[in-house]
Amino acid sequence: FGFYFTFSMTNSATNLRLKLPVACIILEVIIIILFGALVQYDNETDAKQWHKELANGSSNYDNDFYYRYPSFQDVHVMIFIGFGFLMTFLQRYGFSSVGFNFLIAAFALQWATLMQGFFHGMHGGKIHVGIESMINADFCTGSVLISFGAVLGKTSPVQLLVMSVIEVTLFAVNEFIVLSVLGAKDAGGSMTIHTFGAYFGLMVARVLYRPNLDKSKHKNCSVYHSDLFAMIGTIYLWMFWPSFNSAVTAHGDDQHRTAMNTYYSLAACTLATYGLSAVVAHDGKLDMVHIQNAALAGGVAVGTAGEMMLTPFGSMIVGFLAGTISVLGFKFLSPILEEKLKIQDTCGVHNLHGMPGVLGAIVGAVTAALATKDVYGDGMADVFPDIQSGDVEASFQGVRQAISLAVTLGIALLGGLITGFILKLPIYGAPPDTICFEDGIYWEVSLATTPSHFVCMNEHTGLRFVHSVCVRVQGHSGP
Amino acid sequence: FGFYFTFSMTNSATNLRLKLPVACIILEVIIIILFGALVQYDNETDAKQWHKELANGSSNYDNDFYYRYPSFQDVHVMIFIGFGFLMTFLQRYGFSSVGFNFLIAAFALQWATLMQGFFHGMHGGKIHVGIESMINADFCTGSVLISFGAVLGKTSPVQLLVMSVIEVTLFAVNEFIVLSVLGAKDAGGSMTIHTFGAYFGLMVARVLYRPNLDKSKHKNCSVYHSDLFAMIGTIYLWMFWPSFNSAVTAHGDDQHRTAMNTYYSLAACTLATYGLSAVVAHDGKLDMVHIQNAALAGGVAVGTAGEMMLTPFGSMIVGFLAGTISVLGFKFLSPILEEKLKIQDTCGVHNLHGMPGVLGAIVGAVTAALATKDVYGDGMADVFPDIQSGDVEASFQGVRQAISLAVTLGIALLGGLITGFILKLPIYGAPPDTICFEDGIYWEVSLATTPSHFVCMNEHTGLRFVHSVCVRVQGHSGP
Amino acid sequence: FGFYFTFSMTNSATNLRLKLPVACIILEVIIIILFGALVQYDNETDAKQWHKELANGSSNYDNDFYYRYPSFQDVHVMIFIGFGFLMTFLQRYGFSSVGFNFLIAAFALQWATLMQGFFHGMHGGKIHVGIESMINADFCTGSVLISFGAVLGKTSPVQLLVMSVIEVTLFAVNEFIVLSVLGAKDAGGSMTIHTFGAYFGLMVARVLYRPNLDKSKHKNCSVYHSDLFAMIGTIYLWMFWPSFNSAVTAHGDDQHRTAMNTYYSLAACTLATYGLSAVVAHDGKLDMVHIQNAALAGGVAVGTAGEMMLTPFGSMIVGFLAGTISVLGFKFLSPILEEKLKIQDTCGVHNLHGMPGVLGAIVGAVTAALATKDVYGDGMADVFPDIQSGDVEASFQGVRQAISLAVTLGIALLGGLITGFILKLPIYGAPPDTICFEDGIYWEVSLATTPSHFVCMNEHTGLRFVHSVCVRVQGHSGP
Repeated sequence: FGFYFTFSMTNSATNLRLKLPVACIILEVIIIILFGALVQYDNETDAKQWHKELANGSSNYDNDFYYRYPSFQDVHVMIFIGFGFLMTFLQRYGFSSVGFNFLIAAFALQWATLMQGFFHGMHGGKIHVGIESMINADFCTGSVLISFGAVLGKTSPVQLLVMSVIEVTLFAVNEFIVLSVLGAKDAGGSMTIHTFGAYFGLMVARVLYRPNLDKSKHKNCSVYHSDLFAMIGTIYLWMFWPSFNSAVTAHGDDQHRTAMNTYYSLAACTLATYGLSAVVAHDGKLDMVHIQNAALAGGVAVGTAGEMMLTPFGSMIVGFLAGTISVLGFKFLSPILEEKLKIQDTCGVHNLHGMPGVLGAIVGAVTAALATKDVYGDGMADVFPDIQSGDVEASFQGVRQAISLAVTLGIALLGGLITGFILKLPIYGAPPDTICFEDGIYWEVSLATTPSHFVCMNEHTGLRFVHSVCVRVQGHSGP
Repeated sequence: FGFYFTFSMTNSATNLRLKLPVACIILEVIIIILFGALVQYDNETDAKQWHKELANGSSNYDNDFYYRYPSFQDVHVMIFIGFGFLMTFLQRYGFSSVGFNFLIAAFALQWATLMQGFFHGMHGGKIHVGIESMINADFCTGSVLISFGAVLGKTSPVQLLVMSVIEVTLFAVNEFIVLSVLGAKDAGGSMTIHTFGAYFGLMVARVLYRPNLDKSKHKNCSVYHSDLFAMIGTIYLWMFWPSFNSAVTAHGDDQHRTAMNTYYSLAACTLATYGLSAVVAHDGKLDMVHIQNAALAGGVAVGTAGEMMLTPFGSMIVGFLAGTISVLGFKFLSPILEEKLKIQDTCGVHNLHGMPGVLGAIVGAVTAALATKDVYGDGMADVFPDIQSGDVEASFQGVRQAISLAVTLGIALLGGLITGFILKLPIYGAPPDTICFEDGIYWEVSLATTPSHFVCMNEHTGLRFVHSVCVRVQGHSGP
Repeated sequence: FGFYFTFSMTNSATNLRLKLPVACIILEVIIIILFGALVQYDNETDAKQWHKELANGSSNYDNDFYYRYPSFQDVHVMIFIGFGFLMTFLQRYGFSSVGFNFLIAAFALQWATLMQGFFHGMHGGKIHVGIESMINADFCTGSVLISFGAVLGKTSPVQLLVMSVIEVTLFAVNEFIVLSVLGAKDAGGSMTIHTFGAYFGLMVARVLYRPNLDKSKHKNCSVYHSDLFAMIGTIYLWMFWPSFNSAVTAHGDDQHRTAMNTYYSLAACTLATYGLSAVVAHDGKLDMVHIQNAALAGGVAVGTAGEMMLTPFGSMIVGFLAGTISVLGFKFLSPILEEKLKIQDTCGVHNLHGMPGVLGAIVGAVTAALATKDVYGDGMADVFPDIQSGDVEASFQGVRQAISLAVTLGIALLGGLITGFILKLPIYGAPPDTICFEDGIYWEVSLATTPSHFVCMNEHTGLRFVHSVCVRVQGHSGP
């Protein structure tokens, strides 16, 4: 074992000296060229165009930057801190969790700008970019990071970049069909982000099934401090979810209402999570896995209906249900997924994003079908323009929402299937079964995992002191 | 001891399988029913009402969401990350610090919405909710979390939920008396939040006094990384305190001035804290306890006067004093509180919230008494409407502020006393004296606390490698 | 060694009982007196003045607080969390990294308010303060923290405070010359903040060169969790850099464009960093040092040109270059700096702030020289008022930018030289060569670095349990 391990640590198959640079630099060069050819400032970021609007009477304070940027920054924190640290729960995979999250997010937001622009942002042959395109790019990135959670610890960064290229593209296609063709509403992305990302990732995980993964079982678990790092991710996702769901809704009451509905849904979800966790966990104790994940399901589940007149009352019921199914999923469904369906879902994204996403889509369809002019007043124009204009009945809007869920599931599963087989090719430097969930393959890792020291007693003074030492494979000049 | 410990780890008395679910689910169901019956969107979150206002000429950009939500999110971070991580300094209580903070905050903000709405937010029999009610709910939650700090490590989550139910209710009563009846000003809550929360919690701690707590003394201390986690909480509280104090002040100069006064008060407080810590700590060294807590006292102490024309100069003097008394409190007063008054104040909330809160109330009373039309101009209408309208003299406003402090102290102490006796009932699964400050009672905790590994030398290649293992009471499928 | 070590731990030379309090309290008292004499609310924070403006028809929603404060808070997070945690990578220097960062930042922002106000903010003999002066004070503080990175682990907090006094003063002088006298543009501070802070700090490090620093070499490295703490700092700096560069630009398109250019520059920089790191690091693995630092170079490099019409395309090219030179700098230049130039740059600020800052200045000069009315339209008035007014040609604006870089380098190097010699005086309690990079000198540190415990088997029940213990030089009553 020792020999194999050593071998694997210097294994040419997992050596990224060529693979990763080639992938990063080629992809970035392609992106830069496409940006040069296709991307343009929109009217609110372009000096000349914006000042024309000023000349026509608008004010600098009307620039959408001031009404979207704070939401954008909250979403940005969820993508890079929230997702990144949520996945640091693994004892020896923290560098990869935060680091690969960082890498693929930085790539995906650029690629998403191009793909989303190409499918629904062209103006005279050019892609216009501004704060809204930035938020949408972060949203698409979130979907990729959800899929990352399903394959966490079992994939190389090169595989993840390839997965991002395909998933971002299909995300943009699905988003276009759902929002533009079918005319569904999904401001917080219960369908387009969570359902899509979860089932895409689960299908990839299915195709990449490792029958001998238990050889790394001893690493696929948390330690005390890694669970605390993961809580940083959880809490940030929880706090900023109201900004996530409201980031691209219409201004005014819509954005305000969406944030508030999400806030109440999450609060109710958290109490359900703690209650259920104590019921199902061993010995009446709380399980960090449930707290870190299920408490967030309430945000996923109001991703579609949050902008509608769901009311705080309705939001809390949805959040309570979401927390409940999520905890039960971790306890009862995840083992079945692994044993029966051969889906090794490292982070349990099916419980946090999959089922709550589907619930959110259904809640959205029902809420839309029940929309009445009496409740929405002229606000109907913001939430359901087609109902306001009389093009469709509320009931039919509900049908559109339901169809959108089906379409999303179809594209996600099919896309994940194809992507899985592409990622199965033995050319990406994937880790062997014996050393999954281990930073040491892809990162220079200090052998010392804590400030190591020994305590001595000075014979002259009797004073105790600490002497710390540092062991490392090679010197670390420090950042 | 070993036997007792094992017993306690499986002790039916501390087993929450029934207690916690019952508490969480009953409370949440009650809340949901009351929300269904009483809570309504306010005019800025309701689609119909807001669009009526638009029809009457207001713009979506006038929606208060855009002028309160960024402050709300900063406050939200203080409540969930700030308070949560500040309390992770204990070596084996990090899960409970962040996790119970998360649970009771998620409950308290819902309960506070109802209680605050009931006492001062009813419109035609309905509670109207929007961004301001969300901020006020978070404020009330902060008060509960302050009390949590006083009993940290010695209470079960069920006790904490019961405490929250009572404290939130009394908070709303006191807030109503202070702000509505007495007409005092307290935008940042030196009185209503900090003084109330601190003395309420201290009285609870007094009633729950454990003579044999030293049996857990070996756990009531920090370790290297736990102090770093705690610094995350400290720094976030410090950075966002300007948003906290200004979150609900009048728009315009008031909000702007309050944030700036707080910023300067905290900066001066920090220098006082470092200076004093080196004076009083052992061997001229700095004590993390002081840095983590006393450096924040400056924010507490300008919670009342921050919105007034305190000037940066005045703010700095107040901050400097606050840091000074806080450090001295930790050094000289806390031991007396514990030995003489039998108050075991785990987090030293008396030094961070108690004394600085009282100082803030006094500073507020003095600053109010000195208010002149010459200094405030027409701005008097925002800060002291009753002085502007001529209903009261500035000096009398000062008296109102002073009376409010007395009322707050009275309600907090009496409320804490009653609550303490209620929490003393042996039905909540409180930990025995021997295993306070220990996550293991209420959480599934990995036995491994760091990525454990042993270093080997491969006899064939001479390469060194690390092999990590994971020990756990039961398998951890990971989030 | 043991004896020497013990001696040093109780060494009067490093004992701060007198030195630190004297420094903190004298400095704070001076600041408070100067604030009392010189500082005044500006028109947007003063109750009377603002309400006069309201009387003249402006609205509370026009208060600049609403258009600058969210950016300010993001900058604030970068200063206290970003810089603070980025430096926690050292295994035994986390308390000092976050704690001294906290101390000198709290001091520097007050001193900067006075110095910047004195050099370019006087109104009728008074310094007017508001949200813009707060942002500028944080910017100046950032420059000091960059220099701190160069001397990290080798200086006492007293030395750092003295350094801050001088550096802040010279920063204000240089800023005045560059922006006011030379009329250069530098919204994100590629020159005034990054280049200045880096070369100032490098020169200080040069003068403070320690030939025997290798005696502490075993501590000048990271451990597993300390690298994760450092990633918190990295990610926050990365996420909020768009707010940093756009915080003080003109409102409207300028702020919007600057944030977006920075966002794209950082994304491209991150892919370049990962690619290059795998190329140059040992064994094709990624080096945390590169990820933690070089990935941020893209934000530094668009600090000057970000507000100009650089385009996303241009921003990405700049970011890609910045990441590349930064990684290469860590690999090839840092060793040379240390061996040949005797500059012991602990955090490698030359690679993160020095070279990328110079690159940013050059990019700014070129972009300015290429500015045309055709591209900027009337927006020229915001970005290049002197070109708009016809006072200068675009080409000459480019020359101004280039001269500003030279001036900045000159003042930084000369200032650092003088400061270095002042800090060399043996009166500040600097650590001996044998115990640099060690918290134990200046902080009360628990000997236990992780929740220490031993696993036992209970003879009666066979149940396993954990018993944790806490070792400490002296009792730690906990925050």
